[in-house]
Amino acid sequence: MAQISTSLFHRYADQLRLEVDSALGRSVELGDGCPTRLLDAIRHSLLAPAKRLRPLLVLMAAEACGCDRERAMPAACAVELVHTYSLVHDDLPAMDDDDMRRGRPSCHAMFGEATAILAGDALLALAFEHLAAGIEPTSLAARCCQRLAQAAGATALVGGQMDDLNSTNSSAGISTLESIHHRKTGALIRVSLQLGGLIAGADTEQMSALDAYGNGLGIAFQITDDLLDTGGDPAVLGKPVGRDQDRGKLTYPGLLGDETSRQRAEELIDQACAELVPLGENTGGLEALARYVLERNR
Amino acid sequence: MAQISTSLFHRYADQLRLEVDSALGRSVELGDGCPTRLLDAIRHSLLAPAKRLRPLLVLMAAEACGCDRERAMPAACAVELVHTYSLVHDDLPAMDDDDMRRGRPSCHAMFGEATAILAGDALLALAFEHLAAGIEPTSLAARCCQRLAQAAGATALVGGQMDDLNSTNSSAGISTLESIHHRKTGALIRVSLQLGGLIAGADTEQMSALDAYGNGLGIAFQITDDLLDTGGDPAVLGKPVGRDQDRGKLTYPGLLGDETSRQRAEELIDQACAELVPLGENTGGLEALARYVLERNR
Repeated sequence: MAQISTSLFHRYADQLRLEVDSALGRSVELGDGCPTRLLDAIRHSLLAPAKRLRPLLVLMAAEACGCDRERAMPAACAVELVHTYSLVHDDLPAMDDDDMRRGRPSCHAMFGEATAILAGDALLALAFEHLAAGIEPTSLAARCCQRLAQAAGATALVGGQMDDLNSTNSSAGISTLESIHHRKTGALIRVSLQLGGLIAGADTEQMSALDAYGNGLGIAFQITDDLLDTGGDPAVLGKPVGRDQDRGKLTYPGLLGDETSRQRAEELIDQACAELVPLGENTGGLEALARYVLERNR
Repeated sequence: MAQISTSLFHRYADQLRLEVDSALGRSVELGDGCPTRLLDAIRHSLLAPAKRLRPLLVLMAAEACGCDRERAMPAACAVELVHTYSLVHDDLPAMDDDDMRRGRPSCHAMFGEATAILAGDALLALAFEHLAAGIEPTSLAARCCQRLAQAAGATALVGGQMDDLNSTNSSAGISTLESIHHRKTGALIRVSLQLGGLIAGADTEQMSALDAYGNGLGIAFQITDDLLDTGGDPAVLGKPVGRDQDRGKLTYPGLLGDETSRQRAEELIDQACAELVPLGENTGGLEALARYVLERNR
């Protein structure tokens, strides 16, 4: 596979982020009927500076499978809308009770609980509206909606968050932790790649390769997330650190220690990159993105 | 149009409710990955005895436009999933803070706030999964997803709830009230009829007739809802009465008085039934359902 240099990757990723941010901005130019305060809350959470990991996965998967990335942009926006909704709801006082997010006051800290609940609800509905209206042909749009809804639902993202909330001070082991994050973090990462592949008309072998890559990437991402919560810089992260430990949360460093956790993440990323072989030559972006996940500081 | 007798209507509506309840039960036979407590909360709220007004509108609209109602059942389930999600979130302490719903403790009163937020989120995602997977052909499924997402979103259901929350003790008038309920209650009622029409392949004139009927029905439904909150029987309603007045909420009886409100509802229902003419002979169900909305005691 064709490797790309770190500086080339950063220019490429920055360009994609610009395109995603611009499309996300347009996605929340909502018509009459949306109360101003609700729109402010939606824009506050969605348009804050962010990594845009999931949209980048959609676009890079589409390009790796030979598709113009513009065609996949509605799906890139949809996964970020779902991700942002999940952050807004996870931050609520009844859930993780976090006051900072993406370097800003979290949605409920800024706009109150009721508005934050409704902003999250609106973001989730908007994801499906955007996806159903934006993907051509419409038969493909329906398949994308089905996949995204499943990844966002009770057996995946929501179920993982539910089990994560109840994992506090638990004596559970690594298999419980992986089951939680396979759903809570992994499902949306995997479906981002699947949507990119579906839109590009990927064949079964290509879809399997994307899924295997996403599987490893998802776990590695969660491990580095946990490591940043123990050793990251709050100013760069845009949120406080040490929150997981304070709550006695089930985490990778808590179970395996920092050093073994980091090794595990490195192995998973090596393996994820190796899974990309069936996709052929255009996987430099996905490979570099996986390395970035390992080295990220936010 | 062919009128049907009250007793025939009740047998017909009861039969549809049975079919809807059975399909809803199957829609929440969720696979591995859904935590037990989350599934219990979802089932508690979704499968409580209920009028199933919105699913009945989907099925009756489909039948009125000449389609086998079985084809529209995934859409009937989807609108009830969206309606139930909205009840679960509206009942939360940060929103309307209601402890009783459908004759049972509301979701958060039974399972706690975090679980209720997540159960609502899961119901919303499930609505789109069910619709995208269940409607044939898939190009039609995408159009249905787009319409439902718009009706559930920031410019409709969520926006209406946001403005309703802030209407407390307001000095606003009838146009504000109608704008709130056009979105909060009306959007989901109208889209229920639209989905039934779309699935039946209704033409533009038929779709307009369904929309005009839904418009009147939606406002009339909200007026009777407000009237039941002032004069209904809590045992039959399955929730306390007088809550709107206690909160100083903007309501029809509060603005117009009980008698004028009732007259307005009657006029709207007469007008809604008259709008059904372009649909031809099979509108007896929709007409009787509109009369039932006027006379309902729950």
